[in-house]
Amino acid sequence: MGAKRFLSALFVFLCLLGSSAIPGKNLRARRPCKRMVFYFHDIIYNGKNSKNATAAIVGAPAWGNMTILAGQNHFGNMVVFDDPITLDNNLHSASVGRAQGFYLYDKRDIFTAWLGFSFVFNSTEHKGSINFAGADPLMNKKRDISVIGGTGDFFMTRGVATLMTDAFEGEVYFRLRVDIKLYECW
Amino acid sequence: MGAKRFLSALFVFLCLLGSSAIPGKNLRARRPCKRMVFYFHDIIYNGKNSKNATAAIVGAPAWGNMTILAGQNHFGNMVVFDDPITLDNNLHSASVGRAQGFYLYDKRDIFTAWLGFSFVFNSTEHKGSINFAGADPLMNKKRDISVIGGTGDFFMTRGVATLMTDAFEGEVYFRLRVDIKLYECW
Amino acid sequence: MGAKRFLSALFVFLCLLGSSAIPGKNLRARRPCKRMVFYFHDIIYNGKNSKNATAAIVGAPAWGNMTILAGQNHFGNMVVFDDPITLDNNLHSASVGRAQGFYLYDKRDIFTAWLGFSFVFNSTEHKGSINFAGADPLMNKKRDISVIGGTGDFFMTRGVATLMTDAFEGEVYFRLRVDIKLYECW
Repeated sequence: MGAKRFLSALFVFLCLLGSSAIPGKNLRARRPCKRMVFYFHDIIYNGKNSKNATAAIVGAPAWGNMTILAGQNHFGNMVVFDDPITLDNNLHSASVGRAQGFYLYDKRDIFTAWLGFSFVFNSTEHKGSINFAGADPLMNKKRDISVIGGTGDFFMTRGVATLMTDAFEGEVYFRLRVDIKLYECW
Repeated sequence: MGAKRFLSALFVFLCLLGSSAIPGKNLRARRPCKRMVFYFHDIIYNGKNSKNATAAIVGAPAWGNMTILAGQNHFGNMVVFDDPITLDNNLHSASVGRAQGFYLYDKRDIFTAWLGFSFVFNSTEHKGSINFAGADPLMNKKRDISVIGGTGDFFMTRGVATLMTDAFEGEVYFRLRVDIKLYECW
Repeated sequence: MGAKRFLSALFVFLCLLGSSAIPGKNLRARRPCKRMVFYFHDIIYNGKNSKNATAAIVGAPAWGNMTILAGQNHFGNMVVFDDPITLDNNLHSASVGRAQGFYLYDKRDIFTAWLGFSFVFNSTEHKGSINFAGADPLMNKKRDISVIGGTGDFFMTRGVATLMTDAFEGEVYFRLRVDIKLYECW
């Protein structure tokens, strides 16, 4: 093509490029650079299951204690966990890593929680960690939290993770499905 | 203009563009892509106000308990909250969402705290969440914490939030003003 | 050079630039824009050292208490801290800021922790804060956590911090070395 047409094409391309560099405005498509689905399994210590427990109540309000989630929708309970991560919904499947961190119930009249935790991988497929934080209004079917960083294979990553309660048994066993969508991959 | 002048202009433009692509160096202006001011209202459970309380002490040091903030500048107290967010400083205004998470007092000789929480919106104007973390040296008039992520309308956002203690009554009611400045908007 | 050669050079440059703008894919070199090494010093309150203590146990599992880290690898203990930051490994060196936040032990059969904290600087060299979160499998010599944000001199920063346990004495004094590598500097 002629130099003129080339220059115009160039110009359009540059304008597009330039627009994506506008301060603070990111026009990138909301298309994940990586997507992964995992399950993790939380078994809360209740005074009798110390062999299987993967989580313990470590904070309770004035009306609670450390071996059963408190009344008033567990408001004020803080739970620390180190749960196995699996690729399917079977607690007994081989784990590909550990979900480590805490959640706390923060409301009196409804079940709702706040989470800070990491996925720590150490499998042939993944090494490194993904860090999460966010509100978990667990009466909703799907809840979005933030992926706030990562290390190793997930160096500097950011994204959004969608949580679903996949199953629960009484107030001791909870299984969460996590659909991780990473939008920044280095 | 002539092809030569066009090319030089192009070259300068490219150099500018190139410089903003230097690894890890971000020359974007510190101009927010979105700015919002809110208030939130924290009423700590004290054994008598269970009807109005929006927060509960769930962690205390050896010298504390769960119905009153501990001595030594509350060092070691952890408080879980689910507070109404309002557009003005009136506790009784219609809330536009909930501030959910925790703070902890982390110093013996002065009031200072650390915060991890989310703004969860569900109004006609905003849906989604903004996640925050950071130190809150609350004796300072203004304190900056980080916006570490967001979901929904605030998908993938990052920024800085400036906290001010707008009012407090005894050790039960606190009102915070939050000036949210988002510098990454998707 | 001739216009043609210039145009081809330009084209190659643009392609390179373009490729770094692929949605969600960041081809920037993993070269820090800022790197700093610090030490911080954690002295846990044990009922006798209130004068020197910089940290307090504020959460404990059913089998623990607030003046000594619990059995079963401290699983379920939550510790709140406000520790001095120094440039070398000497506890008595002048501090350049405070490390403020919490850690919690989250596993029964091995020592492993989860951290949420800030470095709050107020020296002639640095003003502002850096916020951290992540898993700390503290039996490993080196552990990576995420830098999730910053304020002041560290406005909007992100990165990775490598922790090393530099020393410990009994279960009261811990010294951590932190190698902070920032990959996003504004």
